[in-house]
Amino acid sequence: MPILTAKQLTNVSKNLLKAAGASDEEAETVTNLLVKANLAGVDSHGVLPNLTSYIQGIRKGVIKPGAKTEIIQEGSATALIDGNWGFGQVTCSRAMQIAIKKAQETGVGAVGIFNCNHIGRLADYSLMAAEKNMIGFIVVNSDPCVAPYGGRKAVLSTNPLCYAVPTGSGNPIVVDFATSMVAEGKIRAALYKGEKVPAGWIVDAEGRPTTNPADLYEPPLPPVQNKLAGALLPAGGHKGYGLALIIEILAGALTGTGCGEEVVSGLTNGVFIIVLRIDKFVPPGEFTTRVQKLVKNVRNSPKAVGSDKILIPGEPEFAEQERRSTAGIKIPESSWEDLAKTCEEYGLNAEELLRT
Amino acid sequence: MPILTAKQLTNVSKNLLKAAGASDEEAETVTNLLVKANLAGVDSHGVLPNLTSYIQGIRKGVIKPGAKTEIIQEGSATALIDGNWGFGQVTCSRAMQIAIKKAQETGVGAVGIFNCNHIGRLADYSLMAAEKNMIGFIVVNSDPCVAPYGGRKAVLSTNPLCYAVPTGSGNPIVVDFATSMVAEGKIRAALYKGEKVPAGWIVDAEGRPTTNPADLYEPPLPPVQNKLAGALLPAGGHKGYGLALIIEILAGALTGTGCGEEVVSGLTNGVFIIVLRIDKFVPPGEFTTRVQKLVKNVRNSPKAVGSDKILIPGEPEFAEQERRSTAGIKIPESSWEDLAKTCEEYGLNAEELLRT
Repeated sequence: MPILTAKQLTNVSKNLLKAAGASDEEAETVTNLLVKANLAGVDSHGVLPNLTSYIQGIRKGVIKPGAKTEIIQEGSATALIDGNWGFGQVTCSRAMQIAIKKAQETGVGAVGIFNCNHIGRLADYSLMAAEKNMIGFIVVNSDPCVAPYGGRKAVLSTNPLCYAVPTGSGNPIVVDFATSMVAEGKIRAALYKGEKVPAGWIVDAEGRPTTNPADLYEPPLPPVQNKLAGALLPAGGHKGYGLALIIEILAGALTGTGCGEEVVSGLTNGVFIIVLRIDKFVPPGEFTTRVQKLVKNVRNSPKAVGSDKILIPGEPEFAEQERRSTAGIKIPESSWEDLAKTCEEYGLNAEELLRT
Repeated sequence: MPILTAKQLTNVSKNLLKAAGASDEEAETVTNLLVKANLAGVDSHGVLPNLTSYIQGIRKGVIKPGAKTEIIQEGSATALIDGNWGFGQVTCSRAMQIAIKKAQETGVGAVGIFNCNHIGRLADYSLMAAEKNMIGFIVVNSDPCVAPYGGRKAVLSTNPLCYAVPTGSGNPIVVDFATSMVAEGKIRAALYKGEKVPAGWIVDAEGRPTTNPADLYEPPLPPVQNKLAGALLPAGGHKGYGLALIIEILAGALTGTGCGEEVVSGLTNGVFIIVLRIDKFVPPGEFTTRVQKLVKNVRNSPKAVGSDKILIPGEPEFAEQERRSTAGIKIPESSWEDLAKTCEEYGLNAEELLRT
């Protein structure tokens, strides 16, 4: 398994994206966010496998390099943005900047995006707001793969939600999770490894609880195709289902992206962002004092049996980021081979890019 | 068990509140919201036992009839409101109206409240926004009774969240739940009935999982006192914990109410509201078409094994509201006796109030 530095991975990714038609700015934005996900330990949202799927997206015309990010509707605190099917990372970074600007002016920025491709890891967008001492929220919908509470058919997406809160000193609090029990990728990973999945994660095509990951899919199984027969289940039963519905509505209905089966299959994300400016409510110093006290009380509170640490959300990812910045990022052999092959198709030598 | 009509219950409640010092407007607002909760089947947030606890609150000076609802900080899309310890229902109704007005003007209204007493059932506030064809959100913090993920001490509150979405025709979608496994009242109810609670709801003082409701409390057990020894657990493990944190931060830190142990014990609620105006993003007709299609797809999707219906959040409460509007509201004998006794203390005859 090759171990690459963030710089090496950045160099390969940027050059490949540019060779495939991305501008310097696009290649930079997409690469930075993918590499950040790898550094944070969230490899599912990292350079691999996403970069190769984006390159395929460009070839198929699903991702359109050079697409404009257009504001279609605008109010003093709101905007609706047409991503025109550019790179999701580029569209969403610009949208977050607009939300931050609106929040700076009015105290709140609420921004929706449609015609938007896969934006990757949510945390990095919320963190853009936290870096400006604001609270950032982002929710996303995509292809359906989750059953409603009491159902067995995938009619909702994993509808993740994310927020980041500045803490004054130290790292922001960052929560970033799917409102389904897990992301679909975890079921596929178990399938490839020949492992069972925990009870309560999925139902089969007849709506029966199952721990066999193969029951989620229509044959032929992944990686040949990736069609669902069963469905993922919502987190916490009716509670995750209730969250999934509002996220489907905000990211899908309020943006015009569409909900459930209306979402264009493939790389699509409907996105809804809210940014809050703290000092429009309370003095920032008072706010961070309260948040720090809360964090301290939670962290230092006595542990449950079997628990040796109470984590503050975001902590493990910040720790991993520090670790991987030195230790490097492990890339699975087969993913690296795929990437090297894609590089070749664009006249690039991946091994050489590692050395420059 | 007496069965009262909404009109009878309203008459008793209004007169008692006025006798205890509430103005006509206060008595009307508090009563309407309490009776609405009873009609919706959410008796824990209804007239009983809340009315008697509010009367005690007035006597102790915790609730101050006639208190002004003051806007302390204001921006075009934001407001921070000092409830001055008036009736929570009055403060929060006014705050929601302010949020709706801000959303009408700028597309979003974000309003925080501090010095606020118990506001009751959240759904009715979000519904005020939905009635104006807007999306309403409300989150609340209060006394700590929930452990963080991996913890055993109550350092977070049940931190409920609620939203309502208009659907064009028919009832809005309404989600209203605690981010803990359950509300504390359910543990107390099991204790009184001598029943066990499901595994995963609570831990005892040593942080061990338990199904004995008595393990949650310090002796002497409720109703003698209501001190926690153990804690409620967050819904869905780290996911409910992540939600609890952001709600504690929005309702507690961003409003100045305080978080966890900082919250004034008793009837206090920190409140944060967001209202979104739909037509600042997409045409309302397009929005409701998409939401109706989503609702239809979800409702009509095939059922899981053991499930005979897929419910849309809010449906059971709207159905119960219709049923109880005709069938009346059952009041537990002992609660009715308590109320009649309190009426007497104010020179009122509860039985007589039922007849007028």
